[in-house]
Amino acid sequence: METDIEINEERMEKSIKTLKEWKKDINKELSRDLENAKKEAEEIHVEGKKVIDYLEDYTLRGGKRIRPGLIIAGYKAVGGEEYSKIVEAANSIEFLQSYFIIQDDVYDEDDLRRGEPTVHKMYEKYHQEELGDGSSEKFGRDLAIIVGDVSASLAVNKLLESKFDKKTIIETAKKLEKINRNTNYGQALDLKTNNTLLENTEEKDVLTVHNTKTANYTIAGPLNLGATLGNGTEEQKEILRNYGMKVGLGFQIYDDMLGLYGTKEKLGKPVDSDLKEGKKTLLMIKAYENGNEEQKEKIKQALGNKNITTKQIEEIRKIVKETGSYEYSRKKCQKLIKEGKSEIENTDKINEESKNFLLGIADYIITREV
Amino acid sequence: METDIEINEERMEKSIKTLKEWKKDINKELSRDLENAKKEAEEIHVEGKKVIDYLEDYTLRGGKRIRPGLIIAGYKAVGGEEYSKIVEAANSIEFLQSYFIIQDDVYDEDDLRRGEPTVHKMYEKYHQEELGDGSSEKFGRDLAIIVGDVSASLAVNKLLESKFDKKTIIETAKKLEKINRNTNYGQALDLKTNNTLLENTEEKDVLTVHNTKTANYTIAGPLNLGATLGNGTEEQKEILRNYGMKVGLGFQIYDDMLGLYGTKEKLGKPVDSDLKEGKKTLLMIKAYENGNEEQKEKIKQALGNKNITTKQIEEIRKIVKETGSYEYSRKKCQKLIKEGKSEIENTDKINEESKNFLLGIADYIITREV
Repeated sequence: METDIEINEERMEKSIKTLKEWKKDINKELSRDLENAKKEAEEIHVEGKKVIDYLEDYTLRGGKRIRPGLIIAGYKAVGGEEYSKIVEAANSIEFLQSYFIIQDDVYDEDDLRRGEPTVHKMYEKYHQEELGDGSSEKFGRDLAIIVGDVSASLAVNKLLESKFDKKTIIETAKKLEKINRNTNYGQALDLKTNNTLLENTEEKDVLTVHNTKTANYTIAGPLNLGATLGNGTEEQKEILRNYGMKVGLGFQIYDDMLGLYGTKEKLGKPVDSDLKEGKKTLLMIKAYENGNEEQKEKIKQALGNKNITTKQIEEIRKIVKETGSYEYSRKKCQKLIKEGKSEIENTDKINEESKNFLLGIADYIITREV
Repeated sequence: METDIEINEERMEKSIKTLKEWKKDINKELSRDLENAKKEAEEIHVEGKKVIDYLEDYTLRGGKRIRPGLIIAGYKAVGGEEYSKIVEAANSIEFLQSYFIIQDDVYDEDDLRRGEPTVHKMYEKYHQEELGDGSSEKFGRDLAIIVGDVSASLAVNKLLESKFDKKTIIETAKKLEKINRNTNYGQALDLKTNNTLLENTEEKDVLTVHNTKTANYTIAGPLNLGATLGNGTEEQKEILRNYGMKVGLGFQIYDDMLGLYGTKEKLGKPVDSDLKEGKKTLLMIKAYENGNEEQKEKIKQALGNKNITTKQIEEIRKIVKETGSYEYSRKKCQKLIKEGKSEIENTDKINEESKNFLLGIADYIITREV
């Protein structure tokens, strides 16, 4: 994306490097957690172990660990210093993430996640190869919901087992569960929007979905959990929240742009998947709003079309640019990132190292290719 | 069911009366919780409020509140005395219950629960009446999963907000989440069993499902949560667990008998629903195992048959009796209830009032009509 934001390359690279270092420790901890979960499940039955096997495969196959990274960042931003304690607790949100996206894959009927089969597809295969009765598709779907449910339980459990003081644990666990519920309310609105005719879809609903499902869940929420674990002040939490909600909304708008203009190799899923599932992104809504009759008709024919052609995708890409919808999203995204950055640029309530990390992350968010 | 267990009618009536009294307080607390949840959800969006509206309708339309009742019983059994505190905390499991059965209704494709539409059917109707795009059936299913997820989150949240000391809250919340996961492992095995050919289904797998999905979840687990909240000793918890696992398994076997021989009015769902969904109960497995070729064939044709006739149901009822399968289940059930009762009859570690309550509940379990 063309950007008029001044990107501090050096600072951004440093943030990415920090995130990668944390990621290693997070992944080590995740592997350990999953091994323990497997033992627990195996005591019940081998079929319980399979639930965790699939969760492990799915969770460890990739992911940038941005959410646990932001828990660590929020903790450090308010002066937290016990790194190994925060890494342990931070992992809780990675289990919440697997729960959301495993079930999201079911809602969206996506076959691939990070270039490999989604959990419902894995269970579908298991059914086809080893079981003899019933529908493979339904079995896959039902079992994926169960894997998600177990992962949600492991999320809060991880926090309950952490080494922070009991009052802090309870306060943070309540916040984690509030994030869980709010993200689900956003999901409900998202599904409603996707089941509403394009001409009846409102921009404000799409933005509410982005605010709950992405800005709060991916950026502002994790920062708040970290700040809570670090006993931050309300003032500090407020600054982090303002940064997180703005940068988070920018992140999602940019993500939808990548979803339409990216490549399969980079996205780890087909480029037409957003279009096929009829996702009513800001790009689509604005293009439809501003389009002429012919363009409107083409958008309608493409959106939610399971048999969409490469030619149609190209046409949609063109229409989104011609109607000014691309530019609308691009500008909105830039503005949000700028405002988000300014929330922390001029404060002395957040320590310097964390400020630089978060500013670098904001730049990364609008320059990344995936 | 014909029983050779000596039923103490007076004691049983007293237990039922106690349960009903608790139920009133539990329901009051549940209504309050749901009102609060609605306010929280409404802040996000009206679609979030709808999630709680449907959860409220579903949760408050009936239910004996046996699980929160057993949390109260477990608490009192180890000497707990703060009634209003335990009622509040006990409610957590009623949210877990709504979560399990709402999602269970999706897995089983049940249209009715307690005589009224299941959550996925409610959302299906909403889609048909108010939305214009996509599949009503899929929308109903996806939204029901979301309502379940939100309810699971409210469950642990309720415990985290309770007024017990922080150490006890954390310990109990971890146990609640372990029950959550284990029940899901049982659910996974249940779905696997129901997708396995009848001739390959093993009795031990069916019993494992009963132990996790019913005995632990419905009886032993809640008693343990209550005993944990009441700071009971390991010895007390062990006694309650032995009682709970045995009586709980008896409960499920009896439940399957009611499922085949009950009436629609009493069950609140069609009498053929277990057969239609191909539920591999102990009754079916034993009848198939002991049946002659003709009987085996009839069972195969009936089980999982969505178009089963009244005549076929009558035939299955007859076969289950003729093959001795009914008697096998009846005896197993009686033995379990007897053994469960004896676990608490001869101990002085549980107070007298709680002993009588639990003995009365055990009798109720095998004489109830629904």
